Amino acid sequence: MGPGPSDVHSRVYRALSTQLVGHLDPEFLAIMDNLQSMLRTVFRTENRVTIALSGTGSSGMEATIGNLVEPGEKILVCVNGVFGTRMCDVAERVGGRVVRLERAWGEVFDASEIRQALESDSDIRFVSIVHAETSTGALQPLSELGDICQEHGAYLIVDAVTSLAGLDLRVDEWKVDACYSGTQKCLTCPPGLSPVTFSDRAVEKIRGRKSKGVSWYLDLNLIDNYWTEGQRVYHHTAPISMNYALHEALSLVLEEGLENRYARHASNSRSLVAGLEALGFSMLVEDESKRLPMLNSVRIPDGVPDADVRSGLLRDFNIEIGAGLGPFAGKIWRVGLMGESSRRENVLFFLAALETVLRALDTGVKVGAGVDAAMELYRR
Amino acid sequence: MGPGPSDVHSRVYRALSTQLVGHLDPEFLAIMDNLQSMLRTVFRTENRVTIALSGTGSSGMEATIGNLVEPGEKILVCVNGVFGTRMCDVAERVGGRVVRLERAWGEVFDASEIRQALESDSDIRFVSIVHAETSTGALQPLSELGDICQEHGAYLIVDAVTSLAGLDLRVDEWKVDACYSGTQKCLTCPPGLSPVTFSDRAVEKIRGRKSKGVSWYLDLNLIDNYWTEGQRVYHHTAPISMNYALHEALSLVLEEGLENRYARHASNSRSLVAGLEALGFSMLVEDESKRLPMLNSVRIPDGVPDADVRSGLLRDFNIEIGAGLGPFAGKIWRVGLMGESSRRENVLFFLAALETVLRALDTGVKVGAGVDAAMELYRR
Repeated sequence: MGPGPSDVHSRVYRALSTQLVGHLDPEFLAIMDNLQSMLRTVFRTENRVTIALSGTGSSGMEATIGNLVEPGEKILVCVNGVFGTRMCDVAERVGGRVVRLERAWGEVFDASEIRQALESDSDIRFVSIVHAETSTGALQPLSELGDICQEHGAYLIVDAVTSLAGLDLRVDEWKVDACYSGTQKCLTCPPGLSPVTFSDRAVEKIRGRKSKGVSWYLDLNLIDNYWTEGQRVYHHTAPISMNYALHEALSLVLEEGLENRYARHASNSRSLVAGLEALGFSMLVEDESKRLPMLNSVRIPDGVPDADVRSGLLRDFNIEIGAGLGPFAGKIWRVGLMGESSRRENVLFFLAALETVLRALDTGVKVGAGVDAAMELYRR
Repeated sequence: MGPGPSDVHSRVYRALSTQLVGHLDPEFLAIMDNLQSMLRTVFRTENRVTIALSGTGSSGMEATIGNLVEPGEKILVCVNGVFGTRMCDVAERVGGRVVRLERAWGEVFDASEIRQALESDSDIRFVSIVHAETSTGALQPLSELGDICQEHGAYLIVDAVTSLAGLDLRVDEWKVDACYSGTQKCLTCPPGLSPVTFSDRAVEKIRGRKSKGVSWYLDLNLIDNYWTEGQRVYHHTAPISMNYALHEALSLVLEEGLENRYARHASNSRSLVAGLEALGFSMLVEDESKRLPMLNSVRIPDGVPDADVRSGLLRDFNIEIGAGLGPFAGKIWRVGLMGESSRRENVLFFLAALETVLRALDTGVKVGAGVDAAMELYRR
């Protein structure tokens, strides 16, 4: 119940240990085709270039920025947590000129301030933003940004590592040009691949680059030649087993249905929050509509010892939750309810465990009301 | 029985599907420590920085070259096949000035010509070479190159993707500064990770870089901070399941013993070659001492239809072998005997299957003698 990896379904484990075939075997190529088709459904896109990169979510960040941004081009990076900060580093390394737009950690950006930034600097060619900031639990609204970018001749790059398959995300409708994710959050597969999707105009931009990208391994043109039916040009040996696992994880997502899955994540989060609030805790993100359902960041009250609680949960209950990062170290906990981990049993077990640990540590928190408050919401 | 992935032991499949823990969980950190220690044994090194990167073998190529080579620095790349060619591309993308030393595909380099290249251009700071060229089946002797590099102030980078754990490789004794491999060849684990090792002087060179490397994902300094005990600074979410699998695959390698494993690869290759020669085939690499035991490249005789034979083997016998690449397309087959796939049963089954397919295609090859010739060697 940390910020990922989330629990994995037994069917995904079974897929993971299915016997290997080669990366150019007709059976595997068929799996790749299915995988692409399922990824398109989950990303809500018809983008032809929708694939799983052979690295974790961070490799997806590097691939989207590294393929799109050419040396000297300006990119507006929206920074309100760890992953926006990371985007700046990645963009600078490939020669991008980074314009930082900052918000306090835990806050999100208004469409108007992004419009203003684009209006005040017509050289900006990219806007890069995190949908679900895992370091803070803040949910960035995206629906207006695509239009704003297109009006200003910019490409929209979205980090959906933690949101994909757990939260409404519409790549085509929202005019997202490049979007990357990871497998170990709401897709609920082990970490190791990065699903990405690129709009046709993004692909065109990449094909028209003046110089090759700095990375051969993540060169989208080369990777695309391997994933495209009728081409299948060997690039690198695909991580076969991880692709099997992702294929099965996507099947599970689609069996449940995206809307049902979003609703499940929302419902479990609401109950968790009700339980925490009944204990007197308060959520870091005050505006309920800006809270992530899969990553619940809660303030640690004064007098409650951060590390003791987390190690008590791990030692006595085998529950891992996330610590605060950066300015929030020691100030918040991050409770993950992602994919298979987003279950009523987990919410209730966590609340009961937390109460027990708090009682044992004699923290003064008035325990006893958490589970009931959560159950009350479930009973409605 | 292609150029990888090789067959995977059931224990490795079981490890792969072991329940996940987090990438900062104490249990996982202990696995990382063991994994490093086993990798050191297999690489025959005491290098502190010996880790598994979160990408396939090609990401290892990119990481070694990308971390070591700074923009404008000269690198001598030895090109005698696909992977030397790829190294040039990778080095140019990160800003290296590439000096190509070429040999016909299927040949290998003499130490003297590398010495000569270094003598004739004192700006060369790196020599990059492939130990086991998977596209041709040629084995590059390495033992003298480290001294030659050090005499000329250069760093030695070795591609050991296909050789590691199947062929004598001594990182420390041979003074290799950076060496990378893949998991899906002789380590006989699914593809997805890249074991790498860096000498202390290579690490020092990287720490002293004037500018950051172009890749955040493969930045060795950041990755090292995660792998180093006592630091464990979060970088990216490690591919937990693949690390479990590699841990088990390395255990299997060490249970067998490196020398035994090298001998097994050599013995099965000798029998395969004896069988193929008894059928009248000839090996691409004429000098027996320069042939790879894990990747046996054999010339396709005139009148034998390449694709029909390969598809017959796949369809009727479920055997995949590798086609020729580049100048050898249609001219050679590449028969893999790697890790778990390097077994007497595979050698004999392949020879029997090949004879059956050749007979059915009425190729004129005099069949019948292959299995006997292979068995004769095994009986000795």
